[in-house]
Amino acid sequence: MNSDELRGLLVPALTPFLPDLRPATDAMVKHCRWLLQQGANGLAVFGTTSEANSLGCDERIELLEALIESGIPADRIMPGTGTCALTDSARLTRHATERGCAGALLLPPFYYKGVSDEGLFSFYSEVIERTGDARLRIYLYHIPAMSGVALTVNLVDRLVKTYPTTVVGLKDSGGDFQNTTTLLKEFPGLSIFPGSESFLLEGLRHGGAGCITATGNVNPAGIRSLIEHWQEPCADEMQVRIARIREVIQTYPMIPALKTIMADHHREPDWLRVRPPLMELDESVRDKLLGELGELGFSMAGSGAAA
Amino acid sequence: MNSDELRGLLVPALTPFLPDLRPATDAMVKHCRWLLQQGANGLAVFGTTSEANSLGCDERIELLEALIESGIPADRIMPGTGTCALTDSARLTRHATERGCAGALLLPPFYYKGVSDEGLFSFYSEVIERTGDARLRIYLYHIPAMSGVALTVNLVDRLVKTYPTTVVGLKDSGGDFQNTTTLLKEFPGLSIFPGSESFLLEGLRHGGAGCITATGNVNPAGIRSLIEHWQEPCADEMQVRIARIREVIQTYPMIPALKTIMADHHREPDWLRVRPPLMELDESVRDKLLGELGELGFSMAGSGAAA
Repeated sequence: MNSDELRGLLVPALTPFLPDLRPATDAMVKHCRWLLQQGANGLAVFGTTSEANSLGCDERIELLEALIESGIPADRIMPGTGTCALTDSARLTRHATERGCAGALLLPPFYYKGVSDEGLFSFYSEVIERTGDARLRIYLYHIPAMSGVALTVNLVDRLVKTYPTTVVGLKDSGGDFQNTTTLLKEFPGLSIFPGSESFLLEGLRHGGAGCITATGNVNPAGIRSLIEHWQEPCADEMQVRIARIREVIQTYPMIPALKTIMADHHREPDWLRVRPPLMELDESVRDKLLGELGELGFSMAGSGAAA
Repeated sequence: MNSDELRGLLVPALTPFLPDLRPATDAMVKHCRWLLQQGANGLAVFGTTSEANSLGCDERIELLEALIESGIPADRIMPGTGTCALTDSARLTRHATERGCAGALLLPPFYYKGVSDEGLFSFYSEVIERTGDARLRIYLYHIPAMSGVALTVNLVDRLVKTYPTTVVGLKDSGGDFQNTTTLLKEFPGLSIFPGSESFLLEGLRHGGAGCITATGNVNPAGIRSLIEHWQEPCADEMQVRIARIREVIQTYPMIPALKTIMADHHREPDWLRVRPPLMELDESVRDKLLGELGELGFSMAGSGAAA
């Protein structure tokens, strides 16, 4: 593992949109700065939560350029660079690497289903060869509920053995902690991130690297605090607290729910906007969500900065 | 229905690749010409069978330009223009329309799962509005096994009622003929294409528009002949014959199997090449496939030109 590798809380930053559905760059920069101030260790921009797969290749490149130009440190950014197409995935990965990003979070190609480990290995291998840059750090992205393409232990093993200095991590958004513990046991040298803070403390106790989690967009300080204090007596109680907040949010469609919380916090209805095929929550549903979070005493403003 | 609408056999033309995995434009042009000579009514380039979702947006635009420049008539081309991203789908659809293509075969956005009909309607609606061209003809593409996103009767109904001169057809690759007959009954004004010639004759008898089928790449004349003679006594026998050929091919991974037949026909191993995550068939598997087709007396050369 490299000492400069990202660990801790990585946030798949939400992408705000303008009325014409172009990314709202200024609002995104502001949000990314706030996340870092609140204790996020890194920004996994262009993740599932970022609606990145609803953005075109050119849009992702322009937006990453804008974030870096605005002063967000590239070495704190781990953009998602996976698409269905080898050429686009290679282009995005090369761009992120050239711009000095900490790594690239790489979905498997996800249109064709029932593909072989051999075919997936070949895809990742081509992306790595086409990037052709020793600085490249790849984090594999396992999210079968969306991608429909699971990453097996055999595939990860082959990739890690073939590209030991390049394939350095994995995000496990499979939702099955048993799979995460298997990966932690099989690959002690990999930085493995559960895709939810619900598994954060257990993950850390098993050697996990932190978490990459959607709800990090609204509760970064709470999650980061647990990472700071996970070996202390208060840890279990902190885990219960952050998991409870997540449980409320995830009973709603995750992305529009998070944008509801953002819009409420900033008193800025522009934050509600999502790209089709996603839809905003109805007002009554938004009120219900905010009410439930209020009952827990949760608000973005009240979560405070991390130590 | 417009008189200039494509009907009959539409072939999702295979995309051959160069050793560096770029599209082999010359070989593709040659293949498209052969398909039209053999009786294909149209070319549904950039379909699932074309490995289009393994191509980037720029690659699809360049390749469509090259096909049209080479003299393939644009009004015989119905490119696939669906991607995960609204902006890319709109860009590809606008380009195809501006270049005079007969229509666009449009997948739903397929990364996010469990999305609402409302969200899918909004996606298609945005693509139509952004294309902003009265010439646009959209064919909806239902292929849930790959896309993970089904098109419901309610969604189709709303699209057809809102855009009656634009949303004019549908390809049903669901593999369930019951669904096709439901659609034919509900939408008698739509051009509905089963995604397999196994349902061709039954489809035509229920008012179907023909078929858009992968195996049209290798058996266009056989399939076209049935379309010419479907009301004659020989039709059932012809249906059995084309279905039997398909049954053999589809016991293998479809795309590499079709490329195996192409490579054999042209004695050109370059045709075997696929883009990751797909993989070529092993030589022994290729031999087995070709042997089984030989036993049926099938070869591309022997299928003859249609009337």
